Order: sequence, then C-alpha cells, then structure tokens
Amino acid sequence: MLPIAKSLKQGKRGILERLDSGEVVIGDGGFVFALEKRGYVKAGPWTPEATVEHPEAVRQLHREFLRAGSNVLQTFTFYASEDKLENRGNYVAEKITCQKVNEAACDIAKEVATEGDALVAGGVSQTPSYLSCKDKAEVKAVFRKQLEVFMKKNVDFLIAEYFEHVEEAVWAVEVLKESGKPVAATMCIGPEGDMHGVPPGQCAVQLVNAGASIVGVNCHFDAETCLQTVKLMKEGLQAAKLKAHLMSQPLAFHTPDCGKQGFIDLPEFPFALEPRIVSRWDVQKYARKAYDLGIRYIGGCCGFEPYHIRAIAEELAPERGFLPEASEKHGSWGNSLSMHTKPWVRARARKEYWENLKPASGRPYCPSMSKPDGWGVTKGAKELMQQKEATTEQQLKELFQKQKF
Amino acid sequence: MLPIAKSLKQGKRGILERLDSGEVVIGDGGFVFALEKRGYVKAGPWTPEATVEHPEAVRQLHREFLRAGSNVLQTFTFYASEDKLENRGNYVAEKITCQKVNEAACDIAKEVATEGDALVAGGVSQTPSYLSCKDKAEVKAVFRKQLEVFMKKNVDFLIAEYFEHVEEAVWAVEVLKESGKPVAATMCIGPEGDMHGVPPGQCAVQLVNAGASIVGVNCHFDAETCLQTVKLMKEGLQAAKLKAHLMSQPLAFHTPDCGKQGFIDLPEFPFALEPRIVSRWDVQKYARKAYDLGIRYIGGCCGFEPYHIRAIAEELAPERGFLPEASEKHGSWGNSLSMHTKPWVRARARKEYWENLKPASGRPYCPSMSKPDGWGVTKGAKELMQQKEATTEQQLKELFQKQKF
Amino acid sequence: MLPIAKSLKQGKRGILERLDSGEVVIGDGGFVFALEKRGYVKAGPWTPEATVEHPEAVRQLHREFLRAGSNVLQTFTFYASEDKLENRGNYVAEKITCQKVNEAACDIAKEVATEGDALVAGGVSQTPSYLSCKDKAEVKAVFRKQLEVFMKKNVDFLIAEYFEHVEEAVWAVEVLKESGKPVAATMCIGPEGDMHGVPPGQCAVQLVNAGASIVGVNCHFDAETCLQTVKLMKEGLQAAKLKAHLMSQPLAFHTPDCGKQGFIDLPEFPFALEPRIVSRWDVQKYARKAYDLGIRYIGGCCGFEPYHIRAIAEELAPERGFLPEASEKHGSWGNSLSMHTKPWVRARARKEYWENLKPASGRPYCPSMSKPDGWGVTKGAKELMQQKEATTEQQLKELFQKQKF
Amino acid sequence: MLPIAKSLKQGKRGILERLDSGEVVIGDGGFVFALEKRGYVKAGPWTPEATVEHPEAVRQLHREFLRAGSNVLQTFTFYASEDKLENRGNYVAEKITCQKVNEAACDIAKEVATEGDALVAGGVSQTPSYLSCKDKAEVKAVFRKQLEVFMKKNVDFLIAEYFEHVEEAVWAVEVLKESGKPVAATMCIGPEGDMHGVPPGQCAVQLVNAGASIVGVNCHFDAETCLQTVKLMKEGLQAAKLKAHLMSQPLAFHTPDCGKQGFIDLPEFPFALEPRIVSRWDVQKYARKAYDLGIRYIGGCCGFEPYHIRAIAEELAPERGFLPEASEKHGSWGNSLSMHTKPWVRARARKEYWENLKPASGRPYCPSMSKPDGWGVTKGAKELMQQKEATTEQQLKELFQKQKF
Repeated sequence: MLPIAKSLKQGKRGILERLDSGEVVIGDGGFVFALEKRGYVKAGPWTPEATVEHPEAVRQLHREFLRAGSNVLQTFTFYASEDKLENRGNYVAEKITCQKVNEAACDIAKEVATEGDALVAGGVSQTPSYLSCKDKAEVKAVFRKQLEVFMKKNVDFLIAEYFEHVEEAVWAVEVLKESGKPVAATMCIGPEGDMHGVPPGQCAVQLVNAGASIVGVNCHFDAETCLQTVKLMKEGLQAAKLKAHLMSQPLAFHTPDCGKQGFIDLPEFPFALEPRIVSRWDVQKYARKAYDLGIRYIGGCCGFEPYHIRAIAEELAPERGFLPEASEKHGSWGNSLSMHTKPWVRARARKEYWENLKPASGRPYCPSMSKPDGWGVTKGAKELMQQKEATTEQQLKELFQKQKF
Repeated sequence: MLPIAKSLKQGKRGILERLDSGEVVIGDGGFVFALEKRGYVKAGPWTPEATVEHPEAVRQLHREFLRAGSNVLQTFTFYASEDKLENRGNYVAEKITCQKVNEAACDIAKEVATEGDALVAGGVSQTPSYLSCKDKAEVKAVFRKQLEVFMKKNVDFLIAEYFEHVEEAVWAVEVLKESGKPVAATMCIGPEGDMHGVPPGQCAVQLVNAGASIVGVNCHFDAETCLQTVKLMKEGLQAAKLKAHLMSQPLAFHTPDCGKQGFIDLPEFPFALEPRIVSRWDVQKYARKAYDLGIRYIGGCCGFEPYHIRAIAEELAPERGFLPEASEKHGSWGNSLSMHTKPWVRARARKEYWENLKPASGRPYCPSMSKPDGWGVTKGAKELMQQKEATTEQQLKELFQKQKF
Repeated sequence: MLPIAKSLKQGKRGILERLDSGEVVIGDGGFVFALEKRGYVKAGPWTPEATVEHPEAVRQLHREFLRAGSNVLQTFTFYASEDKLENRGNYVAEKITCQKVNEAACDIAKEVATEGDALVAGGVSQTPSYLSCKDKAEVKAVFRKQLEVFMKKNVDFLIAEYFEHVEEAVWAVEVLKESGKPVAATMCIGPEGDMHGVPPGQCAVQLVNAGASIVGVNCHFDAETCLQTVKLMKEGLQAAKLKAHLMSQPLAFHTPDCGKQGFIDLPEFPFALEPRIVSRWDVQKYARKAYDLGIRYIGGCCGFEPYHIRAIAEELAPERGFLPEASEKHGSWGNSLSMHTKPWVRARARKEYWENLKPASGRPYCPSMSKPDGWGVTKGAKELMQQKEATTEQQLKELFQKQKF
Repeated sequence: MLPIAKSLKQGKRGILERLDSGEVVIGDGGFVFALEKRGYVKAGPWTPEATVEHPEAVRQLHREFLRAGSNVLQTFTFYASEDKLENRGNYVAEKITCQKVNEAACDIAKEVATEGDALVAGGVSQTPSYLSCKDKAEVKAVFRKQLEVFMKKNVDFLIAEYFEHVEEAVWAVEVLKESGKPVAATMCIGPEGDMHGVPPGQCAVQLVNAGASIVGVNCHFDAETCLQTVKLMKEGLQAAKLKAHLMSQPLAFHTPDCGKQGFIDLPEFPFALEPRIVSRWDVQKYARKAYDLGIRYIGGCCGFEPYHIRAIAEELAPERGFLPEASEKHGSWGNSLSMHTKPWVRARARKEYWENLKPASGRPYCPSMSKPDGWGVTKGAKELMQQKEATTEQQLKELFQKQKF
C-alpha cells in the first residue's frame, strides 16, 4: 500500500517547477455547483459573494478538496469581476464590493493551502463587458482590477478560465502576464472550437503566444469531450512548434448529447442533472485517459465533489507514489466493502466489479438522452443523433446580439 | 414572498410541543453518505469517528442542514455503539473511544443548534450484538451506554433509527424511555415489514406500546416506498386505536427495483448510485405527499444533501409561513434562472418546466433498472419485474446465520 | 437432433383427447395484428372481412403458423359477430355478410389444417351488444348466429375468447356448449380480474361451471402477467375442486407498465409498439414457464408472428419429441449462425449468448416505460410505478356508460 | 382524399422513363428477414431456395409489397449466386440448382407484377468468390450465370446490391450492362465508405462510370445513416459532373450505435433486434427526408415489412397523387382509430399524436445502446460513444484475411 500524502509534504515548489519536472498536478473541483447544493451560491447569477458572507463554508470546501488530493486551491473568484457583481447587484448587499469578495477569496484559499501541499491560484473568467461589446481597453481594465487583489495577496500563479471566446481569453492572459507570474488558460469549448468558430488548436496557439504556460479546457462538456478538445489543442501546438503544459477540468456530468454551448443547452441544466452525475469509477477512467494523453494538470469543474477529485488521485497514485489524505477513508476500488455486514456486498470489494458495472437510473420513465434546447449542437451529436437544424455562423451571431447580459 | 426563517426564531419548544400543535418538523439529511463524499467517513464500516477526528467537517454539515431548514439536528452517532466501533477497531485509533465519539457528536450538534431554531436529538441504531444473537440484557446495555452520554449532554429528545428487526427496535425504545425524554423510532423496512416478516402496522403498534411518541421509517427505500410503509403503519395504529406522530426519512435515490433489504441489495450500492439521485423537484413531490398523508416529521436519509432538505422547506413554506435561510440563495421553482445570461435558460424559470421535465441520464449504455443481487426482493418488484426466486423465511434465516458482523 | 413434425403426423385426435393424455397443444398467433401489417386488416375496427376479400393472405398466415408448430388453427372470426360487422358497415361492402365472413374463415382454416396435424377451432369474441346493455337473450342470439356456421362447417372444437366481462363469457360458453363440442374460454384480463372486479379465480370457476373444458387468458397483457393470471385461475379451480385444462395466449409485447385494460391503455397502442416486441428467446422463456405452471394449451395473441410460435415448439421439443416443420429453417438457440460469414457472428451460435443478452433499443430519446393513459392501472403497476389515481368502481362504470360502441 | 393506386394503373413504363420524368419509384422491403420470421429462410446462410421449395410464401410477400405501394418487385435472388449456394450446399437439396432458384424467383415476381403497376428487377449481390480473392474473370463469370437467367426471363431492369467493396460492385455493373438493360447499383456502406476505405462519393463515381444509371445504398444502416451516405454520393457525383438517379433502401431498425460494418456488428444481430424496429411514423419521416434530398427511388431492406413500404407511399401520396391499394386498410396518420371503441384511443386518431410520441420499450433492464462487437466502429459513433480502439487500416486488412467465407 502506498503512503498517504501528508508524510510527503514538500517545500513549496511552483506550478511550473512541478509540471516541468513531469509531476502530475491535481486541480480542484467545482465551487459554484457544490456550494449551490450546500446553500451558499445562487444558480443563475452564480456569483461568489459567499467568500464574504459565509467564509466557513468556502473554507470547508477548499479543505475537502485539499484532503482529496488537490495540489492547487483556486480562489473562489468565479464571475467575481466588478461588472458581473454590479450587474447582479440587486441581491449583493451594498458593502460586499468586488474588492472584498476577491480579497476574502484569497485569504481563505491561502489559509487552507497551509494545511497541505497546495498552491493558490487566482482566477478570472469571462466578463459581461466583453459580451456587451466593450472595447479591449475596457475589458482589460476589468481583469486588471481583480489582478491587483491577486498581486496584493501574492497568490502563487494565475488562471484565466471559462472563456467561450478566444479573443477575450487572450486579453485576459495578456493582463495576467503583466504580473510576471505563471499563467494557465482554459476555455469552455468543445471540439468545434470557440463561439466564433476558432478551432481548439488555434485557440491554444493564440493563448500560448499571449503568454500562457498551461492551456486546456474547463467546464461545459463531459470528460470525454474535453479530452478530445485538449487533444486538438495539443495537435495545434505541435503543428505550430509551440510548447505548453496541458490542463483539463471537465464537468462531472455525462453529456454526450449536448450542443456547442455545452451542458447549458441541456434541458436539465442546472436543476435536474442528477442522473448524469459521474461515479468515482468514471473519474478514474477519465484520469487515466488524461494522463495517457499527456495532460499533467488534471482537475474538474462543475459537479466535481471532493470524492471525484480523490478518484483522480487514487487512479494516479502508482505514478505519483502516494495517496491523498482522504484515502484514509476510502479503499481503492471499493476494497473498504470487505468490512460490510452483508456477504454479497463484501463481494463487491474489487476492481472488476466496479469497472464493469453499468449503473441503472431507477427512472424507467426517463430517456437516456435529451434533445438540447438552445441553438447550437455539436457536430458529433448532430451526425449521430439526427439533430438536423442547420445553424449558420450568421444566425448564431444574430441570436447572440439579442441576448442581454 | 414569504419571510425567511431567521426572523421567526422562537423560544425553544420541544419536539412534542411542536408536533402536538400541528407544526411541520423538518428533519435533516444523511450524514454517512454526505461525509463519505466529502472524505470523512469510510463506506463499509460507515462509523462516525469523524466527530473526534474532524469536528469542523461534521459541524459544517450540521450548519448546512440548519440553513436548509432542518428543525432537528441529529447527533452524528450512527453505528456509534461500542460493539460496532470495537468491531471496526482496526482503523479507529486507540483513543477514539465510543464515549468520546458520542460526546463529541453531542457537543457539535448542540453548538450548531444555537445558530438557529433547532432541537438536538440523540440517536441510536441497530447493533452487531443483536445480529450475533446476544440476549436482551446485553443488547440493552449497549444502548444504555450511548444513552448515558445523551443524558449527560442533555439532548432534547431521542431517536431509535435504522432497525431491520422490530424486536431490537422495541428494546432500544425501552432503554431510551428510561430517560423520560420523548422518543422517536424509525425502521429501515419496506411495505413487506421487518426481516422476520412483522408487517409495518404491527411494528408501529409495538413501538408505540414500548413508549415511542413518533414512529415511521428511515433509509433503505425511496420516498414512494417509504410513504407506502408509513401509510401501513398509520393504518396499523388506527386499527389498534393508538396515537402517535408519523415520521419519514427516505433515501434520496430512486429505487423502484430494490428488494426486501432495500438499496443495499442493488448492484450499484454504494459506489455507483449517482444516476438514481433525486432532484430537488422530486423532493418537493415527496414533501407534498408526505404532508398529505398526515406525516409531520419529514426529513431524509442517505443521499439527502442540504439542497434536498431545502426543497422540503420550500414546498411546505405556504403551510409553515416562512422559508429557510438557504432560500436566500435559491428561487422557488427555479426562478433565480430569470437572471441567467442565456435567454433559453431564463425560460426555465418556472414551475411547469421543472415539474414536468423527465431528466435524461446521458448514459445510453445503461438500463433504467438493475436486477438486485442479494437474496430478497419486494413483493411488488417480484410481481412486476419477474424476479421469481422463491426465498422462504427459513432460507432467509439460514443465510442470515452465516453472516459475520 | 429431434425429428421434425411432418414425419409424426397422427390420426386426427380431438383437443380433449390430446390434453387429457398430457400432450402439449400449441396454439396459433395473432391474426389482426399480423394482417394489419401485411395490409389486410384495418386497425380500429379490427374486423376480419379479409376472409372474403383476400382469402390467399389469410390462408398463407394459417399455413405459416401450421409450419411453425400450431396444433390448432383458429378460424379468423375475431369480431365477426353480426352486430360488430354492421357497426363497422361503412367500409364493409354490401355483400360481405356476417355469414360469408364466417363461412370463408372456416373453409380456409379447414383447407390448411389438412396440410398438417392441426385441429380447427371456431372462435367467438365479445360483442357490442353486451357493451350496449342488450339483454342475455339478445347477446346469446349473436353468438348463436356464428355457432350455426361453425356447426355447418363442422369445426373440431370452439373457443370463446377476448372477453373483458365474465358474465358475457359465460353466456358465450353456454351457447357454444349447445353444440356438444368441446369449448375453451379465455378472457383478456389481468390479475385484478374482469372489468367488474371479479377475480380470475372466480372467473375460471364460472366458466367451467358453464361448460368450458379449457380456461385461461388471451391478449391484453404480456406473457408474465398472463401467467400470473392463469395461476390465479388455477388456484381458484383447485379451491373449488373443479378440473379444467389451462390455456394461455399472451401478447408478444412487453407491457409491464400497462393498466387494468392492458396494452390498449398504453400510449403506443396500436401503432408504435415496435420497441416492445418480444424476441424468440423471450418466447422460449414464456413457453417454459407456462409448461412449468401446468398449462398445456400454449399459444399467443396480438404480436405473435410465426417465428414466435416456432419458439414455443422448439422450447418444448424435448418434452414433445419432435420439432416443427419450420425448424428446418432455424437452428435451435441460434446455431444456424455457425454458417455466417463473420467470425464474431458465428460466435453467437449458442444458447448462453442469446439467453443472457439484454437487447438495446437504439432509441436514446425514448424511455423504458410509458405512463398509461385511459383510466385503469393494475395494482402491481400502481404499487411500483407510483400511479396514484384512485379510480373507484363507480367512476369506472360511469366512464364506461359514456362510451359509444 | 386521394384515389388509391389501382385506378391509376398505367401502361408499363420503364424504370428510367419513370425516374427521368421526375416520378417517385417505391422499392420493396426485405425478403430474407421477413421470410425468416415466416419460417422459410435460414438465418446465417440467408439463401433464397424458398423460391423453389415454397413459392406460395414468396409470391404472397411480393403481393403484399405490391399492395403496399412497391413499383418494383425485385426477384428473390439474394445470395443466389452459384458459389454461395454451393457453399451452403449441406442443406440445399441436390436438385435445387442455382439456375432453378433464379428461374423460379423470376417467374414468381413476374406473375405478381401483372397484378399491379410494377416492374421486375433481377438482382445480384456480393459473392464468396470475391471475398476469397478469386480474380476478376472468375467473379464476373458468377454474375454472368445469374444474368443469363434474367435475360431468358426478360426482367425489366437489373440491380447490383449489397456490396461492401466497390471493386466487386463495379465488376457486377459491368457484367449487368452487357444486357443492355438499365442497371441500378447499391452498396451496403455507411458514410465512411467501403471496406477498403473508398469514400461514398468515389464509389458513386466509379459505379456510374461502370454503367449504372441509378446509384445509392441498401441494408446495413438505419435510414438516417443511409441518407447521409447517399448525400455524400450525390456530392461526389456533382463534383465529378456526373448524372445519375439516387436510391436508398435502408434497414427498418434504429442503429445509431453500429459500427463500420453496420448492424451485423451489433450484439443483437440477427435474433434480438426487435426493440429497434422502426414504426410506420419513423418511415414516414425517412421518406420525406429522402425525397427532400432528391432521392426518387425509395425503398427498404432488412426489417421492412409491407406496412413500412405503405408508409413511404402514404407520406409521398400528395406528391404522387394517389395512395396504394393497402391504404384501403389504413387511415393516414392513424385516422382509422376514430372507429375504436375506447374514447381515449379515438383521441389518438391524429398526426400530432403519432408524430411526437416517444415509444417506450417496456424493457427496464435494457439499455438504449449496445457496444458493437466486431472490429469496426463508425467515426461518428467513435467520437460520440467513446469507442477508442484504434483500428488501423492495416489491422483491418489482417483481420479480414483471417476470415473464412
């Protein structure tokens, strides 16, 4: 049996130091979904004022991911740009300013990081300013405001994540690089590329050229689709003779039927996704495939709970040489069941059992796939699932203009 | 819009005072499953040493249930009897004694209860001693040891829960009644009755005669099955001209295909139940049906997360006159989606949408039902699902004898 | 390898002679559904004027069932009572009288019967006269008119089938018994009994007392449900110390989710039942279970095609000592696949493969169950499937009165 | 209401005369599958000796397709090449020679064709000689032997169908063109192209260059996939500035999950495909899409029963101006149900109902998709369904060599 992580704590080595040496870095899971279920985040706006209102809840979730094996604690600053928070101002109390939300997020993450072997990453994500056609300077100013907090709090590195448009992602990377710290950049796109049709390979090239040392995808799609997209990014970088580390943080939901905008288009989003939640065994398969593809920054996004992150750490324990702390409460491949009272449950304490099980939904009135609503469908789904609506790039843009943010 | 709970905090009224006045009391959710996913409980033994090892994690979960609307915080003392903890001693450190686990559980629950309008209930559950055929005096001694802690810590009332055999449940109730405090008793049985075949109506009668003021079911079955079982209990009590309050704490998993021993027999137990997790809308339906059946102590068991408990509180808000604190971060029937960026997601901000949605599993290789393994199947499932194995009571007992605990 | 049937043709022994000696008698399949798909019967009215309009099509279907192993050719006189045919007169040409339809049906069946070892049975079914509350004498007169043709054509025995009301079935049996020929009687009911709530056991007793030598069920429910119903009939007869042969002719559709009126209530009836069609392997399981239950007249109803009947004959070939003629073109349990060109298809030439296969629907947007429409649901489905509509007997009758026939 | 076909019978116009004038020509359905279920064809070898052994069964099936609307009766000569019949000789009686089988097939088709407005097409299909690497001359000699019969019997035109290799299909077309009669050519390939990887567009070009006036696909894939393939053929022809009529004869099974070799790779092939059978409404959608794509020769293959062909004729009745004879027994979009006895079934007598219904399988233990066995999977399925086995062209060929035919 491999040792658990605690005994292995090492001097604080930076993100690039780790990745450059070939180490696997495990990311954390999805905060907005987890905290929505715990009662601290509101679906719809999805903003992180909980860092000020309920720091204990945010702290506990960080701690659980750390125990589960996360090597990076990302500040809970998703959608914490000033324009977004103001936009949702009707429910954010007067005094919970953008600065306070971001500062509290840094404080909490840094506090928990000291409990284990983790780095703190400051994160920015796409902005209403970009979507409402503000110009480059204005959009960059929004990112810069968050960056100031990250610099003041001296986070270890920076992440630009959840971008649907590579143009905005590039601007974000450019701002973050002003700090001199390492920058990772992930987009929430599938194999078809960004909302303007820029293919994943080109997105990756632009991001690296803008200064990102780590590129990849997060959110919007399931593990399988995310890995396809990262593969296309990898190929794009190779063709351009560029070097960067790869990163993936997919959904913890099975979404083979989702469209170009990912799981947001599924009729079940966001309140009836339960039947799609991946099991720990699904995550182990994902971790193995990601590793085999050459990805070394492996984490999760919406739906990833601590036990999902632990599954990554357990799958890659042989490569890494140790288990996470939370494995004290978990036997690899179900072997803790050997202590169960029922003999037929004890018989499930083995890898072959869980690896091959096809879990039932217990919902005989429900189908296995949904027809996505919204306007976009992926090419793959289109071909296979008989989604025939021809959505031209032009139609796409027109529809997009009409949206209010 | 109804006010939220905080403004309504009331002087501490006892459990029977509340129920006798016709109030709805909302229970909490499932600790072992939630904490297993968070990394603090080991599946298989399912014991609660986390109260000593990681009190902050237990505290936070209590707090989330409180915010979600729970009026009762149950001490995290499931399977915390001395015989069970010793049995699992190989991984419980020397100094984490039964007494310490139970005391810490009381301390944590009491601390959080002061943050809101909640009672603390001390809980006992079925014991290895009974299953290994220890006599009545020995089994009662086990319960009495836990009761001593509950008395010392002065909990508000007591719960005997998760009993498969009414005989043992009756012994537990008799011990708990020695305290003079109100006692609730729930069994983890379905409409077929306990493991010796005692029907639910008779179980209820025996429990009330032993001193329970509240009777019902918890765990092992989904909401629909639990309500059927409580209905049979209600009818049994009426036929015997006995009065008691009714209580239900079902699974948060859809299990129409499970057998007599409930979800433990499902091949997916406990590590691949994800596709069966109920949505918040499923829980609202459950809460309404439970209320209509006359149940006034309405909670959940394994699988119930804070957002599931909030769904009970939101469904019954019109009857109760207020919403729980966590509804600050949730719009009734999805109305917070009216603030979403995509117009087609905003269109989901209404009751009709979520009420009628049949969620897809995203798993086209998976069936909707599993053939339970183990030896028991419910009569209903048997008839409908072509499970034809005749399992006589005798075979059942023989198999039972062979098990090690 | 067992010999095929042709070599075993025997002198014409009567139906009771066969059954009394313990022989298995194989019925035929469903004419209205098969001929609807072939283009000769209209769904809705479901009347058999094809005997006059297209005798070659009816003849060919009889012949296929005979080749498949049927020992009884039932005259294609379903819904061929005068009141039914007149009622549907708008599309039956002037000169296609009730008498002609029935006579042609007898002629065709008798002609084909001579090609093999088969008996001819004249059949009557429920009438509009009964449903529109005509009195006993009037209803009996309707049956008598068909019986006159059967006597003139000298069929071997008689079947009263597809009755939802035991009262009308008893009247039919009484009329048929006037002939002196053996009478079989089957009802299209489930375990809940007839439309007035008479349980299957009592139905069987009344039918035997009225003169039926063979009783059972046909149509409306799948094999599993039909066998449950016949089991209840068997128990009713045993309790009443009556003797009769048992018979079953279920649907060739899986309908675990259907209600009290059977598959007619399913939303898919009658034009989208394809995903429910049973495979030949399902039929082999049915045949074995029917045999084990003591049923010796084993056939099928709507949906049963010739290859389904052949599956009964193949499953029971060891007991009977021979295979049907159509087995010349079929290897037991798929063994003809050993001649397939692809090696992985040849690997399917074995019983274990087909016995254990769970066939996919190829329809990821479709559920496995439907919520029946109409007003009735079976008790089993109710309990399991959460169909909660309380439908009183009174409501049932009121609704019934309003129907036009 | 449109008139039915009989009244419109026209002088015998040739296949090209019809297609050139823009007429829709309706093909027939699948003989080997239909006759297997009726008891006259053996699965595995799939040879058509029934033309000699049981001509009445073949005749009746032709007649049903004719009534359903088929304008072409294809001789039942599938796999009737001498090398195939000899190969399966162990069960074909001595005297049933290749010539007799082919002659009888022509006689039967011609006899039935006179009953309506239909042409007779002589058909050849792929040969064991090609698969066992016989040279061009030898393979052509096999086709020429069948062609001699077709010439003697003077069929109206010729079809080369069910070819997995375009090279062999071209040889077949070259032989058939020696006759001077019009030739149609269909391949059983999907969008990935033939077994050597020749894309559909190139296959079409080669076939037209070899002399085919009509090209398209038949068998192996469902309607959706077949239409994609024909679309690729159409584009290939346009790019090459070639003209030809288009033709499609897909399976009547839903097979979104099948691989490169089509439904033969599905684990359910050929004896458990029932849940995949398409409804008449599915066929109407197919017919409309085919028409919109410019296909004018529209028929079916394995699984297509007469009622499926009728659905093509009914869908395109507005364009054609008449209904087929079998529509006398069928109301468009279920309108015959307006004569049903139950009011809620009468409520189903409308297009909206059937068009939107998602039919249930009644099989809660079964998934919606199967993992194909065999070695090939389509690109689409691969991408979407996580089939990751890299099967190189080389591996493919090696495996192919090892097969015995």
